[in-house]
Amino acid sequence: MRLATFSYEGQVRIGVLDPLENLLTDLSSIAPHLPKNMSSLIVLGVDGLNEVKKTLEKADQDNQIPIDKVTLNAPIWPPVRDPFAVGRNYHEHAKEFHDSGFDATSGSKAVPDHPIIFTKATTSVTGPFDPVPAHLDKTNTTDYEGELAVIIGPGGRGISKSEALNHVYGYTVSNDVTARTLQHQHKQWTIGKGIDGYCPMGPYLLTSDEAGDVNDMHLQTWVNGELRQDALVKDLIFDVPTLVATISENITLLPGDIILTGTPVGVGIGFQPPVFLKSGDLVKVSIDPIGTIENKII
Amino acid sequence: MRLATFSYEGQVRIGVLDPLENLLTDLSSIAPHLPKNMSSLIVLGVDGLNEVKKTLEKADQDNQIPIDKVTLNAPIWPPVRDPFAVGRNYHEHAKEFHDSGFDATSGSKAVPDHPIIFTKATTSVTGPFDPVPAHLDKTNTTDYEGELAVIIGPGGRGISKSEALNHVYGYTVSNDVTARTLQHQHKQWTIGKGIDGYCPMGPYLLTSDEAGDVNDMHLQTWVNGELRQDALVKDLIFDVPTLVATISENITLLPGDIILTGTPVGVGIGFQPPVFLKSGDLVKVSIDPIGTIENKII
Repeated sequence: MRLATFSYEGQVRIGVLDPLENLLTDLSSIAPHLPKNMSSLIVLGVDGLNEVKKTLEKADQDNQIPIDKVTLNAPIWPPVRDPFAVGRNYHEHAKEFHDSGFDATSGSKAVPDHPIIFTKATTSVTGPFDPVPAHLDKTNTTDYEGELAVIIGPGGRGISKSEALNHVYGYTVSNDVTARTLQHQHKQWTIGKGIDGYCPMGPYLLTSDEAGDVNDMHLQTWVNGELRQDALVKDLIFDVPTLVATISENITLLPGDIILTGTPVGVGIGFQPPVFLKSGDLVKVSIDPIGTIENKII
Repeated sequence: MRLATFSYEGQVRIGVLDPLENLLTDLSSIAPHLPKNMSSLIVLGVDGLNEVKKTLEKADQDNQIPIDKVTLNAPIWPPVRDPFAVGRNYHEHAKEFHDSGFDATSGSKAVPDHPIIFTKATTSVTGPFDPVPAHLDKTNTTDYEGELAVIIGPGGRGISKSEALNHVYGYTVSNDVTARTLQHQHKQWTIGKGIDGYCPMGPYLLTSDEAGDVNDMHLQTWVNGELRQDALVKDLIFDVPTLVATISENITLLPGDIILTGTPVGVGIGFQPPVFLKSGDLVKVSIDPIGTIENKII
């Protein structure tokens, strides 16, 4: 299923997309017994999804809203806590970032021995078509990073690699927007990557049961129509099971937790000289089979 | 006032300490119109505090619980989101950490030009007397960091240094417990500092109006009774107004947000060879005039 959080008639609601008809079934109106936000639905696990499926069977036109009548929010809204994210997790990007002069990490190796895990502030998370307020970055070095985001279902600590995919509720598309000078100046990346509006996500949460093999997913990023990133998720240095196992080794993952898995080669600092985003640019990140987010730089 | 979040008769409640009598006035029982958790009280700002003061005037013995009958939680529970924290923010500690071999930041300077900001996972936050599960750290390199924590009141973005203290609701004591090998291996500090139970806080939130000048606060840390850290908050490299202004420049601060301000010289990696915490150790962090937290290593 393609689950969405959306704003309609002044309320934040959750729903299910019919991708053929571009209609959203509004769960908040048809199933008042279901939770009102996505993370609470995720807490219900498979039972919750089965309940949603049953609800869909009895839905009719009165419960469906054309997608162009709503504003899509980030699929998990409000976020459970700061999303986790991963640095230097595709080989060619690891080299590109390492060579850019914007990495404040010591050591001569581009490819890390252990996953580099950081977080993005909850207040950076926005909807799939929201503008990115790059004017907040006074250093004018804002860059895009198209990324696959993993949504955790059943939480836990000490999740093994072999069990990890059973803890993945679904996937969505994200842009780990980054102010490169701030990322470098502050050494840790919370400031450079946590700016308000610097984490657009969506358009839908594609549940694991319909997502196929995550390794086959295909990520592409365009800036003003020019293809900049084009990669397969199977090229991740640390794959999804490894990331889930690494974080959960000592940190209890929660239902609804988000892990941005890292960006492939092709970001703005890979150009010589670097090419940063400017007001009016349009950044589009697409992951087949999830969908596309598109964000104007303002 | 000294505000507390505590567990009593199976419920999490908020209350106010009478420090002379060691009695907690249970706001949840006497003032059902007040919020049930601290961050919601903080959202009410000065009006909320005035309401609490009025409530205290009509409190009697029936609403008071001896402090030894409750379990104190972290003052802000549940946390609003991952607490912010600051690295290398006292001169001598900056050198001590820089020279230890556990810092994965590039550059030859110990003292940073800009505040180093990272986050600790919500699931790391525990109560003031909870044990620290250092057995989770398979690298056996767990270390203490006694720290002043700032609690944000009115949120906002673009808070100036001169206005910053008006956005501070109060202060509490924290221990930024850290697995040094993981901190180094993963480059970014989310993993090494985010382990379950690695952020004990409390015992109370001392509101700003009764805290005096934050620069006069005096922090001390003992391990098994041996004084290891002894510093004044005025020796911070980046002071509280600078930290609030730096984070809020691009990230909207929220009521109830927490900022751990950094640790002074005297942590375990400052010894040669380093001395790490081991099962059975007792770590005590005290900040005059806030109070003391005490955590057993297990």
